[in-house]
Amino acid sequence: MAGSPPIALLTDFGSRDGYPGVMKGVILGIAPGAALVDLTHEIAPQDVAGAAWVLHTAWRYFPLGTIFLCVVDPGVGSTRRPIALAASGRLFVGPDNGLFSYVLAAAPPDEAVALDDPRFHLPHPSATFHGRDIFGPCAAHLARGIPLGKLGSAIAMTSLVTFVLPRPVWQGDMLHGQVLHVDRFGNLITDVAGALAAALLATPSARLAVAGRDISARAHTFAEGPEGEPFLLADSSGHLAIAVRNGSAAALLDAGRGDEVVASGVPHERADEPPR
Amino acid sequence: MAGSPPIALLTDFGSRDGYPGVMKGVILGIAPGAALVDLTHEIAPQDVAGAAWVLHTAWRYFPLGTIFLCVVDPGVGSTRRPIALAASGRLFVGPDNGLFSYVLAAAPPDEAVALDDPRFHLPHPSATFHGRDIFGPCAAHLARGIPLGKLGSAIAMTSLVTFVLPRPVWQGDMLHGQVLHVDRFGNLITDVAGALAAALLATPSARLAVAGRDISARAHTFAEGPEGEPFLLADSSGHLAIAVRNGSAAALLDAGRGDEVVASGVPHERADEPPR
Amino acid sequence: MAGSPPIALLTDFGSRDGYPGVMKGVILGIAPGAALVDLTHEIAPQDVAGAAWVLHTAWRYFPLGTIFLCVVDPGVGSTRRPIALAASGRLFVGPDNGLFSYVLAAAPPDEAVALDDPRFHLPHPSATFHGRDIFGPCAAHLARGIPLGKLGSAIAMTSLVTFVLPRPVWQGDMLHGQVLHVDRFGNLITDVAGALAAALLATPSARLAVAGRDISARAHTFAEGPEGEPFLLADSSGHLAIAVRNGSAAALLDAGRGDEVVASGVPHERADEPPR
Repeated sequence: MAGSPPIALLTDFGSRDGYPGVMKGVILGIAPGAALVDLTHEIAPQDVAGAAWVLHTAWRYFPLGTIFLCVVDPGVGSTRRPIALAASGRLFVGPDNGLFSYVLAAAPPDEAVALDDPRFHLPHPSATFHGRDIFGPCAAHLARGIPLGKLGSAIAMTSLVTFVLPRPVWQGDMLHGQVLHVDRFGNLITDVAGALAAALLATPSARLAVAGRDISARAHTFAEGPEGEPFLLADSSGHLAIAVRNGSAAALLDAGRGDEVVASGVPHERADEPPR
Repeated sequence: MAGSPPIALLTDFGSRDGYPGVMKGVILGIAPGAALVDLTHEIAPQDVAGAAWVLHTAWRYFPLGTIFLCVVDPGVGSTRRPIALAASGRLFVGPDNGLFSYVLAAAPPDEAVALDDPRFHLPHPSATFHGRDIFGPCAAHLARGIPLGKLGSAIAMTSLVTFVLPRPVWQGDMLHGQVLHVDRFGNLITDVAGALAAALLATPSARLAVAGRDISARAHTFAEGPEGEPFLLADSSGHLAIAVRNGSAAALLDAGRGDEVVASGVPHERADEPPR
Repeated sequence: MAGSPPIALLTDFGSRDGYPGVMKGVILGIAPGAALVDLTHEIAPQDVAGAAWVLHTAWRYFPLGTIFLCVVDPGVGSTRRPIALAASGRLFVGPDNGLFSYVLAAAPPDEAVALDDPRFHLPHPSATFHGRDIFGPCAAHLARGIPLGKLGSAIAMTSLVTFVLPRPVWQGDMLHGQVLHVDRFGNLITDVAGALAAALLATPSARLAVAGRDISARAHTFAEGPEGEPFLLADSSGHLAIAVRNGSAAALLDAGRGDEVVASGVPHERADEPPR
């Protein structure tokens, strides 16, 4: 299947139980030679928002035509809809539970369907493993070239489930945001992004408070940061992050996802911006 | 190598040391373009039974022709035989130590060989890494189209090592079984399977005792389970499982693999069934 | 892209954040159908020496033409050079920070370039994720067949950064070495390698002291080792290792990387040998 688009997999299945492998076995039975790429399977169990974040930082870097197979699905088998949608030249398959919130905010979808045609599922789907029985097979059929619209009934874009994207808010002169993600290196990635992040970093007097600590040091790269002290930098996702050189900001500050950050001294004439 | 069958890898090598990668490098040198799929490399070290379980839940979902390369091999280099076998349209390569017990119970093999022809090994195999030096190369030669029978001497099916598959036993009206596997989500998957699992779930008065707790709640899906309480459901493997909605049954019950489960109230006229 | 060489990935990115997946997405956009193989992404954060070790044990097992994409890069965005080099029929891409020390010691490179031609990078590279923005794209261009020399300015072999490879030293009749690596199984792999390791194992009176314990038992395979006691064996990398049968030598001895090992009774007429 040379020329078939990659299928990028994003789940909370972990790697111990073989669940991603089983899903891949099913896909390869339907679409032999499909190019499978793991985005991650280490999303915390049932952490839909965490999965949405990783997808947010990743999808633009995949080629047009990529099929994102995303299964973080606490409502598996219940009334939540299994869906597929086309947006920005890529295809997205998964539960309609908010997982695609960032994608939908950045790229209004061209088409969306409920995956309700059993011809594209495994026979006798289980109630508890739709990654194997429904989502994987549908992604494989897309990789084979079946048009999105064939996989099920069209659904209204306005009916898609999205959660409210975290974004910082002004309270007087202070900008209140939060830590969105802690990565493997202990970097604290915040919801201050785009022009606001740039303005904060470009204004020497601006500072960021997190976990009871006021941070004013900043650096362009990890290596340029001060030794043993947290500093601010622009993360590769375009978001403002707090880092420690050769160390973990999360550990040093005892801070984590959801913790408040408060920026002061940021030029206020800049309007809020939606997350990219 | 379009059209070549997938090689599915199952090991206890972990991901830190590069051992699965080295094995893949060897395979790609012999069978360029081979389609490699990780089933898991996170089997606990030397846990042959755990690997056998994961293979049991997975192999049927892979296409015909798939080559399962399974290396959980505490006896590497000793007298245990390296083998390959054909069963149910798939090929299985690994040590003859019980790893294929579930497969052999479900699908009597058509052919089995000892991997004793050094032409299909790396030159000068080590005594401690047969995944790299023997099993990987043999799987790669199979992917290239070498017939199974060429890889070594035929061996008698009856000589293959298998362990006794765990299955529940009746003691009077009580069905005594055990927890076979705890998955990433903390679901406790038991050896009560098939018609017995169905009968238990379909009988409102039937219950299951585990870790000193009597469980009678049941649900069709994770989302339908009661809040914060363990409940019974049919796992995607067809086995009876104990789950907690958005939580871990293993943590809540402080239960794990090997723990006894005792079912009461299950219609007794049903005969024991072998695990599927 | 049948016939394109594999790209083997080695990073400290972990698997939670999707960083390796993003890098693969970029590669597949440039080199559709590229064969991607994970060597490991679980190098400890910023552990250049640990990455160099894993690469040392792996690269010879990959086919000629393989492109090793190695990103353990505490100096990302700083003055350290992004480089690519050709050695022993393979290509190596990554930061010039010592990661290729073992490779360069074993196989003098044929060619090396600084990756300073932005036409082969993503537009507007970030300062913090060169795996995605520079190294991944350059590896992908190599996979497409762009010659190494096109990717940037030639650099002098003698200017490549390498660290001093750990090797044991004689002090009188005692050979002082160290633990280089602890693998998933708890095996302690030392810097005693090649002929010295062979001589030690072949001399019944020779012994190895580590963590206050004197070890004289030895075995050819893990299964042949004594029960519950540490023993010596030749690791699959050709290095002397300390193992425990069905257990962890690291845990039993409370020993780890960097710990000293002292061999006594090793025939001294053997000259030191460089690590292979």
